[in-house]
Amino acid sequence: MQLTSIIGNAAAFLTTISFLPQALKIIRSGQTRQLSLPMYLLFVSGVTLWVIYGIQEKQLPIILGNAVTLVLSGTILIYKLREVLKGSSGL
Amino acid sequence: MQLTSIIGNAAAFLTTISFLPQALKIIRSGQTRQLSLPMYLLFVSGVTLWVIYGIQEKQLPIILGNAVTLVLSGTILIYKLREVLKGSSGL
Repeated sequence: MQLTSIIGNAAAFLTTISFLPQALKIIRSGQTRQLSLPMYLLFVSGVTLWVIYGIQEKQLPIILGNAVTLVLSGTILIYKLREVLKGSSGL
Repeated sequence: MQLTSIIGNAAAFLTTISFLPQALKIIRSGQTRQLSLPMYLLFVSGVTLWVIYGIQEKQLPIILGNAVTLVLSGTILIYKLREVLKGSSGL
């Protein structure tokens, strides 16, 4: 495998898996006040579009990587929205 | 422009710009306790690799998009590291 594709795969893996520790931290603590709601609204929208892009381009790596990121960042967004709607957290 | 490239460009724009509100929130509040240090270490490493990948593939959109994300997420990582090193924030 060429060095460039190794770098690309590693980059995709790291940016995908990076949301796991943040999701776990929030699931444990339930605290999201310092997280930005606009960030996760924008990010989850963007990752959703990446999944759609991957489906249209029939690119399984783009679909799978972004689907995992969507589940993780979507979990964080749901926790944040819950706190905001409960009134116990700002945007 | 084809619908698929519009979707791809929109996805890239949203996931890139999404870190701006989180960076601004932290710069204003200085509080990072609820953010995950492992997340930002992994994410910044991954985005750095994406910039290297873009340079090797001579793909300006990949370079520019990820360079912006690197500056924004790197800013968040620096604030988080400072708090952890001061002892006023866990991982």
